[in-house]
Amino acid sequence: MSKKVSTKVLSGFMELVPADQIAFDRMKEKIESVFKRHGFVAMDTPIIERAEVLVSKTGDETEKQIYKFTKGDTELALRFDLTVPLARYVGEHWHDLTFPFRRYAIGKSFRGENPQKGRFREFYQCDVDIVGHNELSILNDAEIIGIVNRVFNELNLGPFLIRISNRKLIAGLAESLGVAPLSAQIFRSIDKFKKVGEQAVQRELAAAGLPAAALSEIFTFLKIEGEISGILTELEKLSAKLKNETFKKGLEEIFLVVGHLKLLGVPEKNFSVDLKLARGLDYYTGTVYETIFTDHPEFDSVCGGGRYDNLTEKFTNEKFPGVGASIGLTRLFSQLKEAGLVTKVLATNTQVLVVPLVTDLSVPLKIASVLRSKNISTEIYLEDAKMKTKLAYADKLGIPYVVLVGEDEIKASEFTLKNMATGEQIRTSLETISEKIRL
Amino acid sequence: MSKKVSTKVLSGFMELVPADQIAFDRMKEKIESVFKRHGFVAMDTPIIERAEVLVSKTGDETEKQIYKFTKGDTELALRFDLTVPLARYVGEHWHDLTFPFRRYAIGKSFRGENPQKGRFREFYQCDVDIVGHNELSILNDAEIIGIVNRVFNELNLGPFLIRISNRKLIAGLAESLGVAPLSAQIFRSIDKFKKVGEQAVQRELAAAGLPAAALSEIFTFLKIEGEISGILTELEKLSAKLKNETFKKGLEEIFLVVGHLKLLGVPEKNFSVDLKLARGLDYYTGTVYETIFTDHPEFDSVCGGGRYDNLTEKFTNEKFPGVGASIGLTRLFSQLKEAGLVTKVLATNTQVLVVPLVTDLSVPLKIASVLRSKNISTEIYLEDAKMKTKLAYADKLGIPYVVLVGEDEIKASEFTLKNMATGEQIRTSLETISEKIRL
Repeated sequence: MSKKVSTKVLSGFMELVPADQIAFDRMKEKIESVFKRHGFVAMDTPIIERAEVLVSKTGDETEKQIYKFTKGDTELALRFDLTVPLARYVGEHWHDLTFPFRRYAIGKSFRGENPQKGRFREFYQCDVDIVGHNELSILNDAEIIGIVNRVFNELNLGPFLIRISNRKLIAGLAESLGVAPLSAQIFRSIDKFKKVGEQAVQRELAAAGLPAAALSEIFTFLKIEGEISGILTELEKLSAKLKNETFKKGLEEIFLVVGHLKLLGVPEKNFSVDLKLARGLDYYTGTVYETIFTDHPEFDSVCGGGRYDNLTEKFTNEKFPGVGASIGLTRLFSQLKEAGLVTKVLATNTQVLVVPLVTDLSVPLKIASVLRSKNISTEIYLEDAKMKTKLAYADKLGIPYVVLVGEDEIKASEFTLKNMATGEQIRTSLETISEKIRL
Repeated sequence: MSKKVSTKVLSGFMELVPADQIAFDRMKEKIESVFKRHGFVAMDTPIIERAEVLVSKTGDETEKQIYKFTKGDTELALRFDLTVPLARYVGEHWHDLTFPFRRYAIGKSFRGENPQKGRFREFYQCDVDIVGHNELSILNDAEIIGIVNRVFNELNLGPFLIRISNRKLIAGLAESLGVAPLSAQIFRSIDKFKKVGEQAVQRELAAAGLPAAALSEIFTFLKIEGEISGILTELEKLSAKLKNETFKKGLEEIFLVVGHLKLLGVPEKNFSVDLKLARGLDYYTGTVYETIFTDHPEFDSVCGGGRYDNLTEKFTNEKFPGVGASIGLTRLFSQLKEAGLVTKVLATNTQVLVVPLVTDLSVPLKIASVLRSKNISTEIYLEDAKMKTKLAYADKLGIPYVVLVGEDEIKASEFTLKNMATGEQIRTSLETISEKIRL
C-alpha cells in the first residue's frame, strides 16, 4: 500500500459536512434575499487580481496578510475583501452602470492571518454597497444600516446592536488638535480599544508621536457615552468649542443617519452611537458601524461597514463615493456553531426516495420522473441491496418519505407510501402520493 | 493627478456588467435547481488546497496549468477542478457521509492556460456526482447522464447531443494488443481526434511507441460509427474476436447505460455512442460522456464527465467509486454571448422605485417598507435630484413601476403608480398598488 496524501484541509480553512453546509447555505440565502428585496444586483469579480489593485501605499494590517504570487511576469494576489474589487469594477465599468449603483456580492476572500480560533484564511463575505457618481446622499448610509437591521432580524439569531460612529468626528478633533497627519494611526489604534483596553491604546498613540495634551482631549471625547440624545448634546457642545468644519460635518451626518433610521422603522434598541468605534480599514471617510450580538459579546463584530468617499481615486479621476456593509459569514457561522446556535437541519434536501423492489426499473424511474416534474426533490435507490439497507439510507439521511415499488404495486398502479417519521404506510395512486408529499 | 492603477481584469478572467451577470446567475440557478430536484446536496470545499492534493504522479496537461505558490513552508495550489477536491472530501469525511453520496458543487476553479478565445483561467464549474462506498451501480452513470439531459432541456439553448463511450473498450483493446502500458497516452491522444484529425493522432501515438499493427486495429475500432444499435452489434462481434474481459465489461456497461437512458425517458435524439470520445483527464475508468450543441459544433464539449473508480486511492485505502458530470459555465456563457444566444435581461431585479417628491421621507420610507414586507423588490430614490433625473434612473435600469409620493398623495393617502412601459398613471391606495405590481 502506498503512502496516502492527507485529506485534512489547511489550517484556517472551513469545510462543512452536508447538514452544516445546508444550514450555512440557508443563512446565505436569507441574506441574499434581503439584499435582492432592497433592489440590489449581484456582482461577481475575479478572486485573483493584479497585486497593484489590492495593495495600497499605506499598507495597513489587512494588506500584510494578502496572498501574493507570481505567474509569468505578473504579480498576482487573492482578494482580501469585496470592497476594493468593487472600486476597481466601478472604475472599469462606470460607463455601463446606472448610478446610484446598488450591488451585492457574496463570495470568498482570503487573508493569510495567523490561524487562531474564529479567524479564517478563506472566508465568505456578504457585502452590500451603494455607489454614487460625484455625490451620494448621506441617507444611503442609513439605508445600508436599515438593511443590516433587516438581515439580522430575518436571521433570527437573538438580540443585536448596531453601533454607529463617524470618522469625521475624530478627524476633525485631530485637525483642531494639530495632529491631522496622525489620523490614520488614531483610527487604527482606537479600533483596538475594546480588545486591548485604554492604556494599551494610549501607549500606542504616545509611541506614534501624539502629544499628551492631544491624547487627553481624544480620550475625553471617546468617553462620551450613554443614550444617543445625550451623546449628541455633548457632541454639539464640543463642536461649538472646536469650531472645526470636519467635526461639524461629522456631527450633522450622525444626526441625519440616526434620524433616518427612526423613519426606516429600525427599533431604537437595535442601534447606538459609540464613539469608541473606528473600524480598522483605512478607506472609511465618514459613517462607520458594526454589529454585535448583545447576548454574545464574545463574537465581537459580526458585520462592519461604512462610508468611503475616495476608494476609487486609485483607479480614476472620476468621483465615486460609496457606502456599504459586510457580513463575515464564515466566522459568524463558526461562532454560532460553537455557541450551539446553528439550527440542526437534515443532511438532505430530498423529500422522497423511490425504492424499487423489482429488477425492471421502468416503472420506478417513471415515478421518480413524475415526482420531479412536480418539483418534488426525488431520489431513486439504484444499488443492488436488501430492503433493509434501502430503508436505512432514507432513515440515516432523514428523507421524510419512501415510495415502495414492487410487482403488486405495479400491477395495481398503486404504490406504497411510507412516512419514515411515523412508520405509517398507505397504498394509493401516484397522484395522491404527490399531494401527500407536497403538504 | 497621480498615475492611476489599471482597472482591467487579468487576461482569461471573466467579469460581467449587471445585465449579463443576472443572465449568468439565472443559468446557474436553473442548473442548481435541477441538481436539487434530483436529491443532491451542495458541497463547498476550499479554493486553496495543499499542492500535493492536486498534483499527481502522472502530471497530465491540466496539472501543468495549476496555480501554485508557497506560504510559509507549505506548497499551496488553487483547485483546477471540483472532482479532485470531492475525492479528498470523501476521504476526509466518509464516516459522516451516507452512501451513495449525492453532491453538487458550483464554484470557481483555476487553470493558468495560455489565454485564447473561449478559454478561461478562472471559471465556474457546475458539478454533480454520485460516490459509492465499495460499489456503485452502473445505473448511476445513466442517472447522471439523465440529469445532464434534464439540465440542457431546462436551459433551453437548442438541440444538444450527449456522446457516450466507455474507456474499458479502448483499455481492453490495448490489453489484447499487448500495449496496455500505453493506455493513458492513447486516451489523451484520441481525446484530440476531433480537434487535430486522424493523421496527427496517428503520428503522436506512433511517436509514443505504439506499433503500426496496434495503431491500425485501434483506428479500425475508432471508425465504428452510426446508429447505436449498429455500433453495439459491431462491438459484440469485436468482443467475440478479442475475448478480452475488460473490453467485454465495457460493452456490458454501455448496454446497461444506453438501456437505462431509454427507461429514464431521455429522447434518443439526445444521445449517441461515439467511440472517438476518450476525455482528457486521467482519472476516468469506465463510462465517459460529453455534450455538444448540435447547431453549434464550434462550442465543442459544454459538459463532460464519466466514471472514476479509483479517484480516492491517493487519499485512502477505502474504495469510493464515483460518477459525475461537469458543466463549464463560464466558457459556455461566453460562447452563448458571442453567438447572440444569451437572452437579453434587465440590469435590475427591482420591481418598483419609490420616488419622494417631499423632503420629509417618513411616508416614502414607510411605503418602501410595506412593499418589501410583501416580498416586492423595492428601491427608494434618496438623492437630491430633479423629477426627470429620478424617472430617468428607473427608465435606464428598466424598473417596471414607479410610485410618486408628493404632498397631495400623502394628504389623500393615495399614491401615484406609474407604469414605466406604458406611461399610464393611476392614483390609488398602497394596497392596490402592491397588488398591481405583483400581477
